[in-house]
Amino acid sequence: MKIILSGYGTMGKIVEKMALEKGHTIEGVFSIVNIESPYTIFSNVESLPSADIIIDFSHPDNIIALLEGAKQHKIPMIVATTGNRNNVIKAIEDAAKFCPIFFSENMSYGIHVFTKLLEYLVPLLDEFDIEIIEKHHNKKIDSPSGTALKIIDTIISSNDNLHPFYERFTEPHKRELGEIGVSSVRGGTIVGEHSVIFAGNDEVIEITHTAQSKKIFAEGALKVACLLKEKQNGIYSFDTI
Amino acid sequence: MKIILSGYGTMGKIVEKMALEKGHTIEGVFSIVNIESPYTIFSNVESLPSADIIIDFSHPDNIIALLEGAKQHKIPMIVATTGNRNNVIKAIEDAAKFCPIFFSENMSYGIHVFTKLLEYLVPLLDEFDIEIIEKHHNKKIDSPSGTALKIIDTIISSNDNLHPFYERFTEPHKRELGEIGVSSVRGGTIVGEHSVIFAGNDEVIEITHTAQSKKIFAEGALKVACLLKEKQNGIYSFDTI
Amino acid sequence: MKIILSGYGTMGKIVEKMALEKGHTIEGVFSIVNIESPYTIFSNVESLPSADIIIDFSHPDNIIALLEGAKQHKIPMIVATTGNRNNVIKAIEDAAKFCPIFFSENMSYGIHVFTKLLEYLVPLLDEFDIEIIEKHHNKKIDSPSGTALKIIDTIISSNDNLHPFYERFTEPHKRELGEIGVSSVRGGTIVGEHSVIFAGNDEVIEITHTAQSKKIFAEGALKVACLLKEKQNGIYSFDTI
Amino acid sequence: MKIILSGYGTMGKIVEKMALEKGHTIEGVFSIVNIESPYTIFSNVESLPSADIIIDFSHPDNIIALLEGAKQHKIPMIVATTGNRNNVIKAIEDAAKFCPIFFSENMSYGIHVFTKLLEYLVPLLDEFDIEIIEKHHNKKIDSPSGTALKIIDTIISSNDNLHPFYERFTEPHKRELGEIGVSSVRGGTIVGEHSVIFAGNDEVIEITHTAQSKKIFAEGALKVACLLKEKQNGIYSFDTI
Repeated sequence: MKIILSGYGTMGKIVEKMALEKGHTIEGVFSIVNIESPYTIFSNVESLPSADIIIDFSHPDNIIALLEGAKQHKIPMIVATTGNRNNVIKAIEDAAKFCPIFFSENMSYGIHVFTKLLEYLVPLLDEFDIEIIEKHHNKKIDSPSGTALKIIDTIISSNDNLHPFYERFTEPHKRELGEIGVSSVRGGTIVGEHSVIFAGNDEVIEITHTAQSKKIFAEGALKVACLLKEKQNGIYSFDTI
Repeated sequence: MKIILSGYGTMGKIVEKMALEKGHTIEGVFSIVNIESPYTIFSNVESLPSADIIIDFSHPDNIIALLEGAKQHKIPMIVATTGNRNNVIKAIEDAAKFCPIFFSENMSYGIHVFTKLLEYLVPLLDEFDIEIIEKHHNKKIDSPSGTALKIIDTIISSNDNLHPFYERFTEPHKRELGEIGVSSVRGGTIVGEHSVIFAGNDEVIEITHTAQSKKIFAEGALKVACLLKEKQNGIYSFDTI
Repeated sequence: MKIILSGYGTMGKIVEKMALEKGHTIEGVFSIVNIESPYTIFSNVESLPSADIIIDFSHPDNIIALLEGAKQHKIPMIVATTGNRNNVIKAIEDAAKFCPIFFSENMSYGIHVFTKLLEYLVPLLDEFDIEIIEKHHNKKIDSPSGTALKIIDTIISSNDNLHPFYERFTEPHKRELGEIGVSSVRGGTIVGEHSVIFAGNDEVIEITHTAQSKKIFAEGALKVACLLKEKQNGIYSFDTI
Repeated sequence: MKIILSGYGTMGKIVEKMALEKGHTIEGVFSIVNIESPYTIFSNVESLPSADIIIDFSHPDNIIALLEGAKQHKIPMIVATTGNRNNVIKAIEDAAKFCPIFFSENMSYGIHVFTKLLEYLVPLLDEFDIEIIEKHHNKKIDSPSGTALKIIDTIISSNDNLHPFYERFTEPHKRELGEIGVSSVRGGTIVGEHSVIFAGNDEVIEITHTAQSKKIFAEGALKVACLLKEKQNGIYSFDTI
């Protein structure tokens, strides 16, 4: 495949390395801010080279600009950015009329299974209190993580009496039915850990996903890329691809 | 309900307390060994009093003797004993021709959901290595726990290429595909914790059930008792009751 | 010992049960709000009966009133209340001029060891990021827990460049050096779990204390009671008793 | 520094990469079995090139042969091999009369702190049951891990009433005082996790070290290398270097 990378940060470089190992080529890097890269850097969507796929693990501003490019050039695009969710989704919905767009806040197959698990579990444990803990490295800026937001969405879509709750420290407060307490831990180089706790009467069920390296996201993205480039216009996820 | 308790150990007393609180009565205690109890103690199945249900959390020898009594007097019986599994199951199969018998190595609803979860998860994660860790108090004699055995059965029934493996320390050994490594931890007053670890390429999914007190088993037994006494002869589990 | 209980909630009843089993007597219960109890209830500190020890696991308002009574009648008192910390400590400092007062936000020996461990560990791991997670049942009103506050104090007293941080969700924010992130999880009947995470470059050290039942606090209180009643006026803790 | 690598497996390559980044050079690789490497391969200790340090993360047979070379050429050597412990230690004791040898079953600073923690904790928690769980990838051949053996040694040196226990599955068995139960979990690409559980009456203290990548061991080895080459003959560890 001929690949355009969106951004050339940590994840961009991991995708590059894994892509080259698998025999793909990098046609260029798109970035609206000044960066260094061994590839041609495009900051203007009009001038994008031809390619089979755009793979993004960058920043919401970059992605929104680049979705315009995907739309113009009809290049399938994988969006794995988290943050500024509403605007990103709006831009995706617009672009997806003109090319296939894959969107997932988390590109790992394990996380996909994790969310399927929640869909199965939440209705069975409707008398249990649900709490979420996610842990990431000390350079992560957004809290909660995009994956945690996806987990919250999944839980609520399985039981719409529930809602996320972030303000446990603002004032003395007894937990109310329906709260999904969310905790974000930041430290060191933790790649990513998500736990969902179901706490009931004298018993607790906990499910945890731990990512050991960022390679799982690049591997997921490249697997999806092979499938996405054959698809019709529209928005895709692990459930629909 | 009129209840006969099998044994009068820790769990027997918890069932007693919870049963009395709910307005049930204890008609007597069956034990083949000498014990103390405020209730009439029966060591001979011929002389058992009339009752709606027999609830057992005792010892394999006691249970095998008592199943003969359930059979003779046609009293529904709940068997929650672990250990000496093959002989207990044989005795249950025999008695169940004459009265309804409920058998589960773990009486908690949470553990039941936990095993359903495994049935769902094992086929989805067939490229992951599976390992089990269970933790119990320092007085537990059997290893692995009855619940761990049930977990192993559930996993194997979802993927029959798998088998439990207990001998990691006997000689240097590289893990083989298909092994389900089993670890038993014993210490303090730990009530019961079971974890199943799915370890893949750079990611791990782990599901854990923690029991905080033995009340969950008594509560499960009394809920089952209400349902079981209306059932036809046969063997029942959480799946079929 | 002759014991006055402060409050007669869950912990009061556990102390009562364990105290009676050990041959002590309950002389009465102090409460400024209307409660039920098989013992004489005192709402006015002037009328308190004579006693060897006052044991408190109640509410900040109750404790502040009762400390006045300890002071007047010179009865040693154990304060295990959490919440409204500054005012409680002020009242303790006042009363401790007239009688021995033991104060600990957590009466368990294990938690005491846990804090000693932190004093040892924090200086050794000064290049690691520290984060705290505490979990309690869904009826707990204060967050973070009193024990978590004690843990924070202990960490800061070992490295005064650190400070607690509670606002991870208010705005996008990159973790700053010196932050001790604090997370409070609430659900089911969880008795109490406290974890301190030291996250470094590609490695994490985590220490966790799990309380399985509230009996550990009552047992700690009764052990302290035996020692405290022989002490001079002043404030005591596990370190000094 | 001029470095000789012992073996050129996964860890050898990580040391190489990190060493080159820091400006060191690789003078050659020693291996008694046939391997491929971009460096000159030596299988005979007589022909070793001159160097400042030998760094080993290979296999007991390789290390025992190579210690003879360190001894002959008086090159300081770092031994991080686990397995065949008694024979390796014998060879180290012999070689250390002629050159400085650093030996640690685990080269991470975090694991070093972890063992210091145990020395502090074991005497304080002498009424608690101790159990160990270690987790590694599915290619590891030895169980328990070298680090787990070091942990066991540390615990026993702090309380000599204790001994490791590996046979929980051989026959029904009630935990005896003094047992340190050991569990080895193997799966996926888990880099290395070690937990020590102290289980008491209604409370548990657990300490866990998680390695996220093997870089922590290479970084530890290179740090030690700088110090070791200035040392006198003898055996060194993190405690003495």
